[in-house]
Amino acid sequence: MAKTDARYRRGLKVLKTIHGRAGEEVLKHLAETAPELSRQVIAFAFGEVYARPQLSLRERQIATVASIATLGHSSPQLKAHINGALNLGITRAEIVEILMQMAVYAGFPASLNAVNAAAEVFAARRENKASRSAAGLPGKARPRRRPRRRAG
Amino acid sequence: MAKTDARYRRGLKVLKTIHGRAGEEVLKHLAETAPELSRQVIAFAFGEVYARPQLSLRERQIATVASIATLGHSSPQLKAHINGALNLGITRAEIVEILMQMAVYAGFPASLNAVNAAAEVFAARRENKASRSAAGLPGKARPRRRPRRRAG
Amino acid sequence: MAKTDARYRRGLKVLKTIHGRAGEEVLKHLAETAPELSRQVIAFAFGEVYARPQLSLRERQIATVASIATLGHSSPQLKAHINGALNLGITRAEIVEILMQMAVYAGFPASLNAVNAAAEVFAARRENKASRSAAGLPGKARPRRRPRRRAG
Amino acid sequence: MAKTDARYRRGLKVLKTIHGRAGEEVLKHLAETAPELSRQVIAFAFGEVYARPQLSLRERQIATVASIATLGHSSPQLKAHINGALNLGITRAEIVEILMQMAVYAGFPASLNAVNAAAEVFAARRENKASRSAAGLPGKARPRRRPRRRAG
Amino acid sequence: MAKTDARYRRGLKVLKTIHGRAGEEVLKHLAETAPELSRQVIAFAFGEVYARPQLSLRERQIATVASIATLGHSSPQLKAHINGALNLGITRAEIVEILMQMAVYAGFPASLNAVNAAAEVFAARRENKASRSAAGLPGKARPRRRPRRRAG
Amino acid sequence: MAKTDARYRRGLKVLKTIHGRAGEEVLKHLAETAPELSRQVIAFAFGEVYARPQLSLRERQIATVASIATLGHSSPQLKAHINGALNLGITRAEIVEILMQMAVYAGFPASLNAVNAAAEVFAARRENKASRSAAGLPGKARPRRRPRRRAG
Repeated sequence: MAKTDARYRRGLKVLKTIHGRAGEEVLKHLAETAPELSRQVIAFAFGEVYARPQLSLRERQIATVASIATLGHSSPQLKAHINGALNLGITRAEIVEILMQMAVYAGFPASLNAVNAAAEVFAARRENKASRSAAGLPGKARPRRRPRRRAG
Repeated sequence: MAKTDARYRRGLKVLKTIHGRAGEEVLKHLAETAPELSRQVIAFAFGEVYARPQLSLRERQIATVASIATLGHSSPQLKAHINGALNLGITRAEIVEILMQMAVYAGFPASLNAVNAAAEVFAARRENKASRSAAGLPGKARPRRRPRRRAG
Repeated sequence: MAKTDARYRRGLKVLKTIHGRAGEEVLKHLAETAPELSRQVIAFAFGEVYARPQLSLRERQIATVASIATLGHSSPQLKAHINGALNLGITRAEIVEILMQMAVYAGFPASLNAVNAAAEVFAARRENKASRSAAGLPGKARPRRRPRRRAG
Repeated sequence: MAKTDARYRRGLKVLKTIHGRAGEEVLKHLAETAPELSRQVIAFAFGEVYARPQLSLRERQIATVASIATLGHSSPQLKAHINGALNLGITRAEIVEILMQMAVYAGFPASLNAVNAAAEVFAARRENKASRSAAGLPGKARPRRRPRRRAG
Repeated sequence: MAKTDARYRRGLKVLKTIHGRAGEEVLKHLAETAPELSRQVIAFAFGEVYARPQLSLRERQIATVASIATLGHSSPQLKAHINGALNLGITRAEIVEILMQMAVYAGFPASLNAVNAAAEVFAARRENKASRSAAGLPGKARPRRRPRRRAG
Repeated sequence: MAKTDARYRRGLKVLKTIHGRAGEEVLKHLAETAPELSRQVIAFAFGEVYARPQLSLRERQIATVASIATLGHSSPQLKAHINGALNLGITRAEIVEILMQMAVYAGFPASLNAVNAAAEVFAARRENKASRSAAGLPGKARPRRRPRRRAG
């Protein structure tokens, strides 16, 4: 299946909007072992599901963070999507609030582990920003300033 | 512990906003076997978590529907919260969209069962509306005037 | 493998202590489709695990009820083991307390469904007792004389 | 997205091979509530995953039955895929064997419920065959006689 | 909400009884990211659930260890509660016995991982005791000598 | 229970066929904390379930890899069984295909983590082979050349 079909291109665009360069790198790494699965994440998950305009990206990301925190077992994906949420303009306080709410539905252990994952993401971004600042570089431009707009 | 403390009263208000009379009846039934658990649902889940103003009720309900659909095993709670989502003004199309997205994170079986649960809720509400209409009664006034407002 | 080896006989004895005649009937039904699995439930689960003397049957049953309530998806087994807990002398209040505690670890939906399962078990036993009483029969003798004794 | 793209046609062919007419009816029912999800089951799950030639349909079906039995919460999908396994020529004894093995990895409650689901499927097919036979109709021709061939 | 209400104080007391100083440190760390969640663990989980007198702390801890081992995905919480079980006087042999029993209900992978988590906890305590002994300090006084008493 | 009964010996033979020396070492390590659980893995899981001749070892291993990938939380067991699958002659491409298929039933996060676990196993075996080759030793003879034969 051609990597360049419309779904794939649309998915890549959504992937970049949410996960930036980091998302592409994760999928390039995955592609070394499972190229077709990597393609499906882009063409199906992002291109056929996430790109649909019925919900805003902000609301989709809230649903995704809630879902992965509920699974309880997918720390790498949870961190990636917490990063994605921040990229979309969802605040740290809002992310913590979603994860806290998960204690009610998925139990406290899942909620606590999710908050600890969020704390790691927050710390890594602070550090990254600090090191860029020390080097006289501008902080990572927040790529998303219109969190409630529809995917397109 | 007094049923009438501030948390309990606040929780009861949120419960009514989301689940209407149906929610109170479910918890009254639960209280016959586990009165303290029923009280905790109101005082803790609704009074201490849902009532917090950091997220809108609409966004909390999206997170909850995503979480329970991900669990996969709690059809009664999923239906109750789909009903709650409709009461808050989340549309049928939006609910289906959230549940469809769960196929990506929780797998197709969980997603399909969640959509089937939603279909039952939608049908029950149509029927209920039809029977009220046939009896010359007004349809259930949609209570959710300000779906994006903050809980409070 | 002979059905009459030591493990099988020991397992059958523990099964009868906890589940009474109902347990044997469930496994006879299972054996119609999967005779070897039915044998393993008796010889392995009851004969090699439950029969070990390191924990009392009461404590093993508390752990089992907690575990199955946490799984969330196994209502028939949960009801069977709630019945077993009652047979061992664990009280209704204690069972509800265990299931309520599961809200903390497995979330409220799993806990609520477990309490509803318990309510069905409690009602069925009340009804069964009432119908025996109406027929002039003695109530089911409570078999659990020594709930805290060790399995042997 | 056009329903008639190559993926969709390929998926529909695989769906018919495994699930026969029953599969199409289930997805038609789903499409009333979630037409896009129904399309994705065909175009993605069957057309892009199941249709790949790296594993035989028989081996894919073994993996699917093992996976859904492990989930524990998706009885309708488990029954559909047990039916599919029978359609592919996997025997009842083999299906029971897979489900029995799941006790080791997913625990006995998940395994027992899966075997009970299989027993229902087996009984429904026996009954269906008996009623066709009583009406002088030929038994449902077993559509799959080459269970180990590759999907194509 | 005041940190010093009765529920909070009662919860803190139970937390110290089970988890000692380590528990407070874990929650202090959590509070840096999610202060309200940290407060809820104390005021709700320990103050409103664990503190109830209907079950002994020993029995509650057996249920908790069984539940978290069943979840399978919460190694940090499992280790904390295995430590708590030891603090309450539950022996290593009894803990291993509970975790072994979980193979029956949650499957062998969850059971094996839980036993490996327990082995790490046992080793850390041995080491801690050895280093205290080498320094001429008394071993950690076992804080709990009445494991079967009721909470409260 | 004697370690040398027929089930135990049969289980040990199957264990060696699938997992080689590594399997024995893992269980020896487990036996330090939970000797009876270690014995049950051999005597029950391998000796009473895996050793049954109704399915080939190849097909049992496909079902096991699918099941543990679906659980999502048992990375050590998943890696061990991916190694076992390779030992049985299941190819890397086939393993990746099974794990990719799990995205449909267990969701993409579980599938992605499983593929990453597989990538680690593949890399470790390449490295092991390379270091043996550099030392002038023959590569690890692939112990299993008859992947489809029945267990016996």
